[in-house]
Amino acid sequence: MDYPKPIQTLIERFSRLPGIGKRSAERVALHLLKAEDGVSQQLAQAITDARTRIRHCGQCGGYTEQDPCAICSSARRDGSVICVVEGPNDLLTMERVGGFNGVYHALMGKLSPLNGVGPDEIRIAPLLERVRQAKPTEVILALGADAESETTAGYLADQLKPLGVNVTRIGLGLPAGSALEAADEVTLTRAMEGRRRV
Amino acid sequence: MDYPKPIQTLIERFSRLPGIGKRSAERVALHLLKAEDGVSQQLAQAITDARTRIRHCGQCGGYTEQDPCAICSSARRDGSVICVVEGPNDLLTMERVGGFNGVYHALMGKLSPLNGVGPDEIRIAPLLERVRQAKPTEVILALGADAESETTAGYLADQLKPLGVNVTRIGLGLPAGSALEAADEVTLTRAMEGRRRV
Repeated sequence: MDYPKPIQTLIERFSRLPGIGKRSAERVALHLLKAEDGVSQQLAQAITDARTRIRHCGQCGGYTEQDPCAICSSARRDGSVICVVEGPNDLLTMERVGGFNGVYHALMGKLSPLNGVGPDEIRIAPLLERVRQAKPTEVILALGADAESETTAGYLADQLKPLGVNVTRIGLGLPAGSALEAADEVTLTRAMEGRRRV
Repeated sequence: MDYPKPIQTLIERFSRLPGIGKRSAERVALHLLKAEDGVSQQLAQAITDARTRIRHCGQCGGYTEQDPCAICSSARRDGSVICVVEGPNDLLTMERVGGFNGVYHALMGKLSPLNGVGPDEIRIAPLLERVRQAKPTEVILALGADAESETTAGYLADQLKPLGVNVTRIGLGLPAGSALEAADEVTLTRAMEGRRRV
């Protein structure tokens, strides 16, 4: 006999999540069936809440409940340094590492001509507008080291430099070809320290 | 800055699940935020469905949508052999292994005098009644090898033998002190084959 259908579905949904295999999904599903009332309900609610209550900050693009987000609206953050990241997950990675006190701008993607992603498909125009308005002293490009990120960084440098802002890029320490979120904290801290003007 | 509260809650809920650590819960949470519409919703729905649509079979105690369950109501299962397990997860473990064509009876626990679990707290009376009514030829005790399971098996054997049924117990292969669900398939198959009368 197979598992009853709702259990099969539950296992199947869990096993689609990153890092959770078939056996591990089974274990979680049976745990939820056996657990006290409320455990399943709270998990389902947390999933729904995160999806419905979290939106993108209109300024930096980061995940937030309020717009603008806590970082963009904080008086303690240095608005004169903008750190450009690919997406909101990278922003969270930077914050988890700590040590950076400026503000962010998430591009929501990277240039990928082969996949039809050009400058208009990601948040480049809002970045240029923001730099024109806020006149920051430095824009740090905290992008990955893969080819598309390189292309994006090069394009951004060309667009930003005429606006009279210092453009730097995190460099030292990031292993070639890797994604930003795969970097450990030391590597990322060194990469921030070793940033160079482009 | 910390993660926004709904993301923190989501990570916290996931990290309470068995086999999912903090880092892994973070990865799952960020995946859900970034995933296409529907992925979160379907996962939340699967959790809720499993909890609301799955009940215990009134006869065997196994997980089911319909009562009696597919096993109890199947004409292809041999009702003359009843396999007694501790709980519905053990029943699923037995079915995953395959090879057993009889029916089940889940006790919903095991005797544990120290924790106040006596014969009336688990489904022993319904088992005795069922044996009296259905007059099976064999009752297989597929319980674990820990002390409480031993106690439960001994008690059941004493209660069942006066009813004129053969009582056997899975034995060969189950490593001492382990839970049934931790056994691999070969071990469990050998344990079924090596069952002995008690």
